[in-house]
Amino acid sequence: MNAIVMKRAFEACGSEVSKVALAPRTAVSPRIEAYLRNRTEDGPILVVDRSIVRDNYLTFARALPDTRVFYAVKANPAPEILEMLTQLGSCFDCASIGEIEMVLAAGATADRISFGNTIKKERDIAKAFDKGIRLFAVDCEAEVEKVARAAPGSKVFCRILCDGAGADWPLSRKFGCAPEMAPRVLELAHMLGLKAHGISFHVGSQQANPEMWDGALASAAGIFREMAERGIVLGMVNLGGGFPTKYLKEIPGVESYGSAIFRSLRKHFGNRIPETIIEPGRGMVGNAGVIESEVVLVSKKADDDHLRWVYLDIGKFHGLAETMDEAIRYPIRTPRDGSAVGPCVLAGPTCDSVDVMYEKLPYDLPFSLEIGDRVLIEGTGAYTTTYSSRDFNGMPGLTQVVI
Amino acid sequence: MNAIVMKRAFEACGSEVSKVALAPRTAVSPRIEAYLRNRTEDGPILVVDRSIVRDNYLTFARALPDTRVFYAVKANPAPEILEMLTQLGSCFDCASIGEIEMVLAAGATADRISFGNTIKKERDIAKAFDKGIRLFAVDCEAEVEKVARAAPGSKVFCRILCDGAGADWPLSRKFGCAPEMAPRVLELAHMLGLKAHGISFHVGSQQANPEMWDGALASAAGIFREMAERGIVLGMVNLGGGFPTKYLKEIPGVESYGSAIFRSLRKHFGNRIPETIIEPGRGMVGNAGVIESEVVLVSKKADDDHLRWVYLDIGKFHGLAETMDEAIRYPIRTPRDGSAVGPCVLAGPTCDSVDVMYEKLPYDLPFSLEIGDRVLIEGTGAYTTTYSSRDFNGMPGLTQVVI
Repeated sequence: MNAIVMKRAFEACGSEVSKVALAPRTAVSPRIEAYLRNRTEDGPILVVDRSIVRDNYLTFARALPDTRVFYAVKANPAPEILEMLTQLGSCFDCASIGEIEMVLAAGATADRISFGNTIKKERDIAKAFDKGIRLFAVDCEAEVEKVARAAPGSKVFCRILCDGAGADWPLSRKFGCAPEMAPRVLELAHMLGLKAHGISFHVGSQQANPEMWDGALASAAGIFREMAERGIVLGMVNLGGGFPTKYLKEIPGVESYGSAIFRSLRKHFGNRIPETIIEPGRGMVGNAGVIESEVVLVSKKADDDHLRWVYLDIGKFHGLAETMDEAIRYPIRTPRDGSAVGPCVLAGPTCDSVDVMYEKLPYDLPFSLEIGDRVLIEGTGAYTTTYSSRDFNGMPGLTQVVI
Repeated sequence: MNAIVMKRAFEACGSEVSKVALAPRTAVSPRIEAYLRNRTEDGPILVVDRSIVRDNYLTFARALPDTRVFYAVKANPAPEILEMLTQLGSCFDCASIGEIEMVLAAGATADRISFGNTIKKERDIAKAFDKGIRLFAVDCEAEVEKVARAAPGSKVFCRILCDGAGADWPLSRKFGCAPEMAPRVLELAHMLGLKAHGISFHVGSQQANPEMWDGALASAAGIFREMAERGIVLGMVNLGGGFPTKYLKEIPGVESYGSAIFRSLRKHFGNRIPETIIEPGRGMVGNAGVIESEVVLVSKKADDDHLRWVYLDIGKFHGLAETMDEAIRYPIRTPRDGSAVGPCVLAGPTCDSVDVMYEKLPYDLPFSLEIGDRVLIEGTGAYTTTYSSRDFNGMPGLTQVVI
């Protein structure tokens, strides 16, 4: 997640969100509904419908036909998801040796894996190299030196900072270097015997504007030209992730992203369009999952309080971390939908005062909602199990079932 | 944690903090130093020195001699800590059935346990009752009804919202009801056959002002009087937690809290001082733990950047969650201390742009700091293992050793 980005985006569209809260909800997949009808486990559960992940993969593949898909494993590393994507032909963007091992265990070959983290211990690079990985992200000279020592001859791509042309807010500077620095980083790679392969960037998570790739592609094309002048031919642009999933707001279809990106590639690279890859995570699994949770308590803080407090058995620390700063507003279905609604503060079950999901902009829920009711939190297939604490407050981490 | 409180407190003292960063560091316990010299595990590790927890317990017991200590298990539920505190005579504040089971497994009897979460499933209350628990927190009538059905005859205390008289910021309203509502909640408990036992409140985590308990004690005394008029005699005040641990700023000693609280009790309750309990968590274990972490990367984002980025192998998602909003500023020792320092952005190892610990107010670290250096992050005994994700980015959750 990128809290800064998402928070600002949310603030910008706050009023729209509050209206949409009363709009018709999206449908929960019949397979998930059937599973939940018959479930026997106690406690909150995430159910992921594999067939939706499959549809998402095929949609990406169709919308960007000349682009290889590297699934961002960190979004949801469930073995069943990795196995299915392996069978569909996906490649994988891995953040660590742990993720590389999961992907290999799912049956993918090493040539379908990118070690996409720009922050790696040299001994982890060596382990990855031993496992056959030959594609690494870098964003500075020190990281190039590590890769050159521990994974000789491998391909590296340099991540650049993306200023988000057209965006109203700054992106995090954690990953990437200034575009002006990239040629030196890539030239060092070349000098140290690595293959200077290309450029990567990230336009920001849950990016609602398909035109946002354009500025970064302009920078990338400039670096390609500068490298060519130095006699080094780059071949690849990693377009990153950022493809959104649908929460309460409508989002453009993947096709809009595909065509906008293709237009920008044409514009900046002419008829020498490089190999491209994308790294969808949220866009691949977000809408495939639904969390079922139980209402633990409904209360008021004072007699004259117009707000109810609704406490669920899941909160920020057991899966819903991305409600931090009220950034992501998940659609919530209740068994009382259709009856009159009123504003609620929505909170989790822990003894932690930070464990409150929606308070600044309260969430409209039915007045008739009762303790013990089961609610469905939609669009929770990405970044929920992985953000979950192990057992904060002695409550187990989020359980997941992939069907 | 209470991000709002801590963030404001931090902003208020920002300039002071930046000066203190160059002040002499506290000493790491020789037992921890010896352990780290000989450690063989790879990756970040939290080492907790049990003898410091013991000292903390005894300090609380001495400073508040007529007050029972209920350790807030959520701060650090390591079995070794629970066992030692059981032997010392501590009681325990539990947030869930999971924590109750851990405390019972450590050898404590059920009469030393408070189920202190105001948000409980009725079936969890019944499980606790089956295990012998007879003390429960409530803050509304619906919760009283659950306790009355599932744990008949038990003692309940009502948590009240604490407006933090003298504080510059509002506390979270997640737990507690308005003081005016408490008599009705406790009267319902009495009518339903429960023992209306007392009042609880929380003055805010890492509370640096010992006088902050005074306003809440005034409210509590008022409720005692109102209940007495209704013929119900309350007997207990739960003074909550909030006792700070030392990070970079100096904090008052526990003794100052003990004497300030005793003065307020005298002032508001006269010579009918009720039974009191405290629930220290951070104050009990915070300063007992040190995390050893490795520098994974040191880089700059652009040639003219005056800031270095220092990436550790631990970040927000694997133990340092309380750096959120740069709220807690941990002291960090490096093998290069004593040499010239300069400002760094300090970040974690994951592919998550939010995983940055200190950026708004950069952290001064030695210019000579290198990739591979081991750093010690002090004051990390509380709220680190428990906030840790299971394996975000395929990186394992924080390992802990209690010595």
